[in-house]
Amino acid sequence: MSVPVAGPVLVIGSGLLGASVGLSLRRAGVQVWLDDADPAALAAAVGRGAGDPWQPGSGEPRLVVVAVPPASAGEVMARASRWGSATITDVTSVKSEPLAAAVAAGADPSRLVGGHPMAGRETAGAAAARQDLFDDRVWVISPLAETDSDRADEIRDLAITCGAVPVVMAPEEHDRAVALTSHAPQVISSLLAARLISADDRSVSVSGQGLRDMTRIAESDPMLWQEILAANAASVADVLEAFADDLGEVVADLRAGQGQVVMDALERGNAGRERVPGKHGDAATAYDVVTAIVKDEPGELASLFVAAGELGVNLEDVRIDHVLGRPSGLIELSVRPEVSGRLREGLVSMGFDVRA
Amino acid sequence: MSVPVAGPVLVIGSGLLGASVGLSLRRAGVQVWLDDADPAALAAAVGRGAGDPWQPGSGEPRLVVVAVPPASAGEVMARASRWGSATITDVTSVKSEPLAAAVAAGADPSRLVGGHPMAGRETAGAAAARQDLFDDRVWVISPLAETDSDRADEIRDLAITCGAVPVVMAPEEHDRAVALTSHAPQVISSLLAARLISADDRSVSVSGQGLRDMTRIAESDPMLWQEILAANAASVADVLEAFADDLGEVVADLRAGQGQVVMDALERGNAGRERVPGKHGDAATAYDVVTAIVKDEPGELASLFVAAGELGVNLEDVRIDHVLGRPSGLIELSVRPEVSGRLREGLVSMGFDVRA
Repeated sequence: MSVPVAGPVLVIGSGLLGASVGLSLRRAGVQVWLDDADPAALAAAVGRGAGDPWQPGSGEPRLVVVAVPPASAGEVMARASRWGSATITDVTSVKSEPLAAAVAAGADPSRLVGGHPMAGRETAGAAAARQDLFDDRVWVISPLAETDSDRADEIRDLAITCGAVPVVMAPEEHDRAVALTSHAPQVISSLLAARLISADDRSVSVSGQGLRDMTRIAESDPMLWQEILAANAASVADVLEAFADDLGEVVADLRAGQGQVVMDALERGNAGRERVPGKHGDAATAYDVVTAIVKDEPGELASLFVAAGELGVNLEDVRIDHVLGRPSGLIELSVRPEVSGRLREGLVSMGFDVRA
Repeated sequence: MSVPVAGPVLVIGSGLLGASVGLSLRRAGVQVWLDDADPAALAAAVGRGAGDPWQPGSGEPRLVVVAVPPASAGEVMARASRWGSATITDVTSVKSEPLAAAVAAGADPSRLVGGHPMAGRETAGAAAARQDLFDDRVWVISPLAETDSDRADEIRDLAITCGAVPVVMAPEEHDRAVALTSHAPQVISSLLAARLISADDRSVSVSGQGLRDMTRIAESDPMLWQEILAANAASVADVLEAFADDLGEVVADLRAGQGQVVMDALERGNAGRERVPGKHGDAATAYDVVTAIVKDEPGELASLFVAAGELGVNLEDVRIDHVLGRPSGLIELSVRPEVSGRLREGLVSMGFDVRA
């Protein structure tokens, strides 16, 4: 970090995110105070080295990071803003509502900057905190219209100091974006998974990798997600309604025995999928997939990765196919296109079973 | 294979599935004839060793496997049934409609047994065929009410001879099951991905692993899937309508600023997800996840897998987290619970950065 943000920084809430903010700031040499309504949680974060406990005599922080759940973030930001002159930010995954709640509760909007570091599971405690949790992650910076630009720059520097990549978005823009890319998909995954409850065992036994992928995030914590969805309800409802309209048209087309609407939906699905970052790499780097078969025994998978390493090929992604709930020996290796030929030929010459 | 199915077997259609059926039967010593309307496709399959080309003087097959796309499978089954006395089956991913089409076109229902080997991409040709494509895969066997039980047993033996695990389901039961576990998820994934077309780049840039998982199958071939969905339209529409009803209730709950329906949906999503086979392994084997951090350089990932091999630990699954479309150094290793402690402690003692 060439120019770390100026401290001291007071972090209120010492769970995974708060303690990780503390650790990553300490890594950069910034002074950190920690506070938490729960003395045990505070002690855990202090014990991890995330900062010193804040005390009334500590003095005034230059910057306050509110790392509490969405439902209370507004109130805590307002309280922090009522004393001193610090710049105030938060780390919740919804922006408009907590910021509006903070202003309604008396926060000074000129010193308020929303923040959303896109990393970490928000339920875990300080024990899971890491100084590198935010490295190379997007950290959305959401100033209000009333926010002083110097204050927004300060929070941008905070994100950079923590190792993250700052992306500035207005609160409403942020909330519409995550409604589309995160919150609506959560609802859809949960409702799809819920349809399996009443299915019989035999029906569920014929499921494959697609259903597994589609229902993975249905494992998410209901308490946390109910809070997130409530705080972004209008934007999520907008996305889900547009999706439901499309769905209704597909159902009507299926019932009518037509097919054109279905075909359009599938083709538009192809086009939309192309826009997903990291599909097989980011926009700048589309990866090639090399598929090989290995035995399902200790060390077999390792021999494949060792071979890739010996060929000087970095693996960008790995996917193991599953059969009947068990891993199969079918391994998909995603690599940069310029090295896929080398990997493929190298593996074949080393006796690996590489699939055409 | 202790008791292979009795041949000769005539495989009509020599794409990936047909040629793979031929290869796996040949592996078991069964005589195979191949036929294809496209002489080049036939030559490719014969060249792979999947069987001998069928000729009018070849004699009568004991068993006919129709491996053509769903829309023509019924007609081809009927034609095969009009001469000789062979047992007839298919390998399409929908069962009721192709079988009904076959009977309507004059097939003898007592000799007709639907089949659906759950493996392989149906679009690729004989070049991608493998003798082990069906090993340990589910192969659904769908007799009609009129089918002779000996004929159904013969197709069950065919599946076993090809290395698969036969699961007997009536055609309607099969179609309802795949509507729920495969066809409706395909529509949902495509429609979710389609919502991204009109989003701006910045919105899409804040997406993460959840959206990537939810839209992966939106990459599927529209031509093939339009045919599959058309052939199972009623069952797919039933699942999508029930899903849409649930979705409508969630949207209403979000608009009303309530939250109980949302909470129920999230909790039911948890419960439904528990039913997905291979979530972290099948019902009999739930896996533990050990998370480690490695550098994004050639050989770094390999060193982790080598270490697991040296510890005698078999990796059941591997997941590489992604950030900004690039792989991060965060690696999740799924292993059997009884070895997770050994893996975790072993990796730590070898100097790996294992996450709490």
